[in-house]
Amino acid sequence: MSEVKDAKRAKLYERYDGTGLDTGVRLQGEHFLNRVEELDELDEGFTSEWLKWVYGYMYNRTGLDPKTRILVVLGEAIVLGAEMQIPNHIRSAMRAGATQDEVLEVILQSCIYAGMPRMMVAMKAYRKLCRDLGLRDLTDPVFQGDAREQT
Amino acid sequence: MSEVKDAKRAKLYERYDGTGLDTGVRLQGEHFLNRVEELDELDEGFTSEWLKWVYGYMYNRTGLDPKTRILVVLGEAIVLGAEMQIPNHIRSAMRAGATQDEVLEVILQSCIYAGMPRMMVAMKAYRKLCRDLGLRDLTDPVFQGDAREQT
Amino acid sequence: MSEVKDAKRAKLYERYDGTGLDTGVRLQGEHFLNRVEELDELDEGFTSEWLKWVYGYMYNRTGLDPKTRILVVLGEAIVLGAEMQIPNHIRSAMRAGATQDEVLEVILQSCIYAGMPRMMVAMKAYRKLCRDLGLRDLTDPVFQGDAREQT
Amino acid sequence: MSEVKDAKRAKLYERYDGTGLDTGVRLQGEHFLNRVEELDELDEGFTSEWLKWVYGYMYNRTGLDPKTRILVVLGEAIVLGAEMQIPNHIRSAMRAGATQDEVLEVILQSCIYAGMPRMMVAMKAYRKLCRDLGLRDLTDPVFQGDAREQT
Amino acid sequence: MSEVKDAKRAKLYERYDGTGLDTGVRLQGEHFLNRVEELDELDEGFTSEWLKWVYGYMYNRTGLDPKTRILVVLGEAIVLGAEMQIPNHIRSAMRAGATQDEVLEVILQSCIYAGMPRMMVAMKAYRKLCRDLGLRDLTDPVFQGDAREQT
Amino acid sequence: MSEVKDAKRAKLYERYDGTGLDTGVRLQGEHFLNRVEELDELDEGFTSEWLKWVYGYMYNRTGLDPKTRILVVLGEAIVLGAEMQIPNHIRSAMRAGATQDEVLEVILQSCIYAGMPRMMVAMKAYRKLCRDLGLRDLTDPVFQGDAREQT
Repeated sequence: MSEVKDAKRAKLYERYDGTGLDTGVRLQGEHFLNRVEELDELDEGFTSEWLKWVYGYMYNRTGLDPKTRILVVLGEAIVLGAEMQIPNHIRSAMRAGATQDEVLEVILQSCIYAGMPRMMVAMKAYRKLCRDLGLRDLTDPVFQGDAREQT
Repeated sequence: MSEVKDAKRAKLYERYDGTGLDTGVRLQGEHFLNRVEELDELDEGFTSEWLKWVYGYMYNRTGLDPKTRILVVLGEAIVLGAEMQIPNHIRSAMRAGATQDEVLEVILQSCIYAGMPRMMVAMKAYRKLCRDLGLRDLTDPVFQGDAREQT
Repeated sequence: MSEVKDAKRAKLYERYDGTGLDTGVRLQGEHFLNRVEELDELDEGFTSEWLKWVYGYMYNRTGLDPKTRILVVLGEAIVLGAEMQIPNHIRSAMRAGATQDEVLEVILQSCIYAGMPRMMVAMKAYRKLCRDLGLRDLTDPVFQGDAREQT
Repeated sequence: MSEVKDAKRAKLYERYDGTGLDTGVRLQGEHFLNRVEELDELDEGFTSEWLKWVYGYMYNRTGLDPKTRILVVLGEAIVLGAEMQIPNHIRSAMRAGATQDEVLEVILQSCIYAGMPRMMVAMKAYRKLCRDLGLRDLTDPVFQGDAREQT
Repeated sequence: MSEVKDAKRAKLYERYDGTGLDTGVRLQGEHFLNRVEELDELDEGFTSEWLKWVYGYMYNRTGLDPKTRILVVLGEAIVLGAEMQIPNHIRSAMRAGATQDEVLEVILQSCIYAGMPRMMVAMKAYRKLCRDLGLRDLTDPVFQGDAREQT
Repeated sequence: MSEVKDAKRAKLYERYDGTGLDTGVRLQGEHFLNRVEELDELDEGFTSEWLKWVYGYMYNRTGLDPKTRILVVLGEAIVLGAEMQIPNHIRSAMRAGATQDEVLEVILQSCIYAGMPRMMVAMKAYRKLCRDLGLRDLTDPVFQGDAREQT
């Protein structure tokens, strides 16, 4: 498998902006390359320009330190209800040096500005990620996870 | 299992505002305790203040009768696309005395103000809940559930 | 002026579904006819079908009592940030028998599900409407209305 | 199975506006009848009026050619994060004569006006639909699909 | 005034991608340069990259004809409640050859997918633009424009 | 005027949680008291609990440093299109020590996750605030501010 990945990685680096790819991998790990290869199969021109703009340029601006930038992006993803992106941005925040407490704080704070449903979605994504990664000492809930019990 | 639940319930009542817990359980049944225990593992201070504010205070205000309050909340959840919360609020509305027709009416009405996609998501959640709970006399659809047939 | 309005009203009733027009006027007063005449100038066919659907049909369904229906719609408008519609729906709710307290409750409750910014917009719209209509005993704020003071 | 479908189809055509049903099937294929039968079981009156309004009237207006209308609707569904509807509208656009490139363009363009998370959800839905239908020559991604790897 | 504008225009063309500037002006007229000069004063680097990405690259992609692309963008702006951008995109659509009917159709269609409030905001913006530009034969409404009459 | 304000301030401190009031004033200056007095006239009980929850409790949590917390909140307000709150949160961020560059960075970054319209609204609010407060060296735009020119 590792050889297949190496070949694919080499192919992506041949075609696309190295700074953009490096930045995306620094933020999101190997998962970033999944998004690039999916877009690459659909439209090479778009992928190239998008990569330069978002990861080559925007994420390398210096006005904000990287950790704060990602915590802001995490807050925005929660508020947008962007479920698919929430675990990615939590992971990116941790890679950029955010503590567990800082990540959790962004999640809890969101209920003030975007309301309880958005916060609950993020909280559940965070719990799932923590359990998948073995972070924090979380247990299985004792009570039922849905509204269907006949109590 | 019941003993494990009793022990957990006792532990939550020791730590947290009894009025808030009682109110949440009255609205959502045992499922409410699932949300509390998940938050409790992450941050006790937040859980305590959040519980007092939302379930201890807001849901016990008297300006609106409980049924109307929950139907309004259900309409808001539909409009927000808050899929995870929709079955909860439907269940809460029924616990507060809303009829099947009143719940359905809030769902159908939402297409006027928030458009067809939000209404369809809520309609499907409602059908699923009705079938899980054995409410209404609903059958399996005859036609296909997705857009992929080759017709 | 009254004759001009009478002539216009007559013209609208000639063209459009009477039940829809009556229902809209019952809900929103003369202001409703403003919306109809604006749409009428743009597209008569659309106006006709839209009027039958929303005001002829949906608002005359009986699954919810009219007051509850409008309070739900008000909650949805707040959550959608539909500033232009908020005063209309507040007014409609009052016409349908909602008390000042019920209207206020829907506004305050919205901060739980949609967050503080949406609630604040609705609160300010409500204060403005109350002052325009001479409802409640509201005073001019002593402190400044914007963030620009140099303190 | 075909007989069951024929019987159901006949029943729906007896009850509901034929133009609306024909239009819906033309846009979405058999899947459209799934939505109609689900609504039909819940409320016949609503289903009848909704069908006349949306599919009998709106989709037969002539101000826009059908393909453009559906591409606009697809853009709106992406921006709304209406995941359930995205594959439907992609399919409808193709039925109305949109090319693969036109559909993809609407998806990619959405990142400018609604941001990256909405575009990524649509892109993944599009890839999934293409693979289910055997369109385009898409491969399995080499890199991992989620953020959980320990790299 | 014209000399001041010429000097400013020259300065912007010296600094920024000519294709991007030309494309923006083709779409939005002189108003586009207002946005560029406002951003230019805040951050030259961002303005340069943003211009290349959105107007230099994306709006010159060929997958969609320019008129359809802008009608899709208009639908998205309506659905997003992007009031400030709606008149711009209506104007751009007309520059790209969209008829009055096509623009109106996108506006009216939006009520199906995003609900009545978003459509009404767009309809009012369209009426205002038509009156400012002397398009269509629109009159002053006879009935009152807000909900405050004491009827 | 100052005496009237002193009297009002004293009255608010008598009724409400001092920590909440102090925190709000620290974040937003005197403008915060405007919001409190407006809510106070509508519902004392709500104002009291809301103040304790948001400003007494949430803004005094320690998981995030105050500057980062407000930059996250600013990003969320931009993404929500919460125009009324954007100048407040920009001002709060500066009071908490954010530089002009950090504030601008949050604004520019928002176009990646929430799209261009939200970013443009925030950019204009920021320019207006800077000009009102005499920050940055901003000039009057040379080109027209709306889409209505006949070019």
